Amino acid sequence: MKSISEFRDIINAKIQKESQRLAETEPVNLYIPIKYALEMGGKRLRPAMVLLGYNLFSETFKKAIPAAIAIEIFHNFTLLHDDIMDQSIMRRNQPSVHKKFNENTAILSGDAMSFISFQYLMQSKSNQLFDVIDLFSNTAVEVCEGQQFDMDFEDRIDVKEGEYLRMIKLKTAVLLGCSLKAGALLANVKGKRAEELYGYGVNLGMAFQLQDDLLDTYGNEKTFGKKIGGDIVANKKTFLAVKAMELADKNQKKELLSWMWKKESREKEKIKKVTGIYNELGIKEITQEKIDSYFEAANENLKKLRLTKVQKNGLCQLSEMLLSRNN
Amino acid sequence: MKSISEFRDIINAKIQKESQRLAETEPVNLYIPIKYALEMGGKRLRPAMVLLGYNLFSETFKKAIPAAIAIEIFHNFTLLHDDIMDQSIMRRNQPSVHKKFNENTAILSGDAMSFISFQYLMQSKSNQLFDVIDLFSNTAVEVCEGQQFDMDFEDRIDVKEGEYLRMIKLKTAVLLGCSLKAGALLANVKGKRAEELYGYGVNLGMAFQLQDDLLDTYGNEKTFGKKIGGDIVANKKTFLAVKAMELADKNQKKELLSWMWKKESREKEKIKKVTGIYNELGIKEITQEKIDSYFEAANENLKKLRLTKVQKNGLCQLSEMLLSRNN
Repeated sequence: MKSISEFRDIINAKIQKESQRLAETEPVNLYIPIKYALEMGGKRLRPAMVLLGYNLFSETFKKAIPAAIAIEIFHNFTLLHDDIMDQSIMRRNQPSVHKKFNENTAILSGDAMSFISFQYLMQSKSNQLFDVIDLFSNTAVEVCEGQQFDMDFEDRIDVKEGEYLRMIKLKTAVLLGCSLKAGALLANVKGKRAEELYGYGVNLGMAFQLQDDLLDTYGNEKTFGKKIGGDIVANKKTFLAVKAMELADKNQKKELLSWMWKKESREKEKIKKVTGIYNELGIKEITQEKIDSYFEAANENLKKLRLTKVQKNGLCQLSEMLLSRNN
Repeated sequence: MKSISEFRDIINAKIQKESQRLAETEPVNLYIPIKYALEMGGKRLRPAMVLLGYNLFSETFKKAIPAAIAIEIFHNFTLLHDDIMDQSIMRRNQPSVHKKFNENTAILSGDAMSFISFQYLMQSKSNQLFDVIDLFSNTAVEVCEGQQFDMDFEDRIDVKEGEYLRMIKLKTAVLLGCSLKAGALLANVKGKRAEELYGYGVNLGMAFQLQDDLLDTYGNEKTFGKKIGGDIVANKKTFLAVKAMELADKNQKKELLSWMWKKESREKEKIKKVTGIYNELGIKEITQEKIDSYFEAANENLKKLRLTKVQKNGLCQLSEMLLSRNN
């Protein structure tokens, strides 16, 4: 069995090739931005998970390549449209598509990507393709729902933990579950085993997103790769923020809100004061416990899958890669 | 066999019901705009064509309803995103979705609609469903390509007839072909017959779009339902405009361009003068000949289909409906 990082390299090369091929298609004003979006980089995690999901139950992995490309194109489509909606002008240290080209281009090239992902999916040869398309289209709708919940939360100060967890499940975790399960389905694994693998991916995705929230405040700038405190500065509704508002007493709540509403407040002071309240409330520990609980749930899924040592090893490499960013 | 107008009524009722069901789903901020978009009206032509395509080769039509809904949702998704790109604030005498709600909503609800259309498609029970999904995803990509060509043309004054025809084929005609063919495929008609029916729909779609171009300048305001000359005022690259630029002598070209570039020119005078040049060049007759040639091509497809009188009658009602708007 190949390792997850080998799969990332393999699929990265394939995507480079396909994006080159697409960029030679007319109208070029539609396809050049698609090439740009696909070649911005990224970890190629989801397509690697499709190949891994297939390779877990098969000697090969090549038959899963079209589906892997499909899921990466879909993922990049969501980033492209999210960047318009969030008015993010940078992505991975490069101008985002709507900034590099224009907004109309970003809308339309994104739309085309969503359908191109189905075209790739349809290239898969498998008796289970029908189930894969079903899974993929349902997941795509869920991702849109997650993005909507996320936008809805921007205007609210009373987001509950359960609502937040549902949002990140839809926006992030289900696509990780879908990636692994799609691979397994294509390898003719179905029913309960496919479901457990899906659950494994979703639970890992939840832990991954919560850890991302945690590291944004409590991480090490060098290993996290982003500036610490960015979520606090941007008033982002993370698990930490939601939990803090839930647990804060009257005074703490008042202070948290005053930092949210303050215009042009000094960033450093804001990060320090808000983190101070998080510390008082034990938010770091609560979040870590939540991460651990999802990680344990993923391990429960793993047990029920009754895999060989080699298979288990493949999945453990994945979870290590997902959760290894230093605390 | 049911008539195309009966099918329109049937599918309209189904879509009302489905949009109500969708609007009861969370997050409501995602689904309410979808309901709004689906209930704005429209002729329900494409879904009626799916039912007709099925009913041509089957005693029933009910099995084609999910696919018909899918195609109508897809069509409305394209209108929704096109309205953002074209900055159209009205559609069917109501505020367009991005005006009624906001642009982010219009982007995301549109995205969701595109995937919901696949969910409906997947509800179809047929051995040929695989071919239908293939057709549908290819058509969807083509529609995006057509929209891109259309946007590209806005900045050009040298669009050639062939380029224009390719654009309207992709943007408009292929979805009509797809609608009929999807119905036929679901009824287990395949191969050459399905292809001829597709060609019939595409050729009819070409004639339909060209007639729309023609009537915008030469139609009767009462029966056309829109103000005459709107395309001229908006400098739209229609078949008439493209053909006129192609055939104009140096002076006529200069005058056409001066009208295009004039800011805040008096609308009535502009329409009169540009139409005057069209008249000098015989654009009305050239366009009518082009329409006739596509209509004849559609009839060639019809012959090759070797249909019974009843079947032919069903398709003739369709072409009459498409092309009957008074000249």
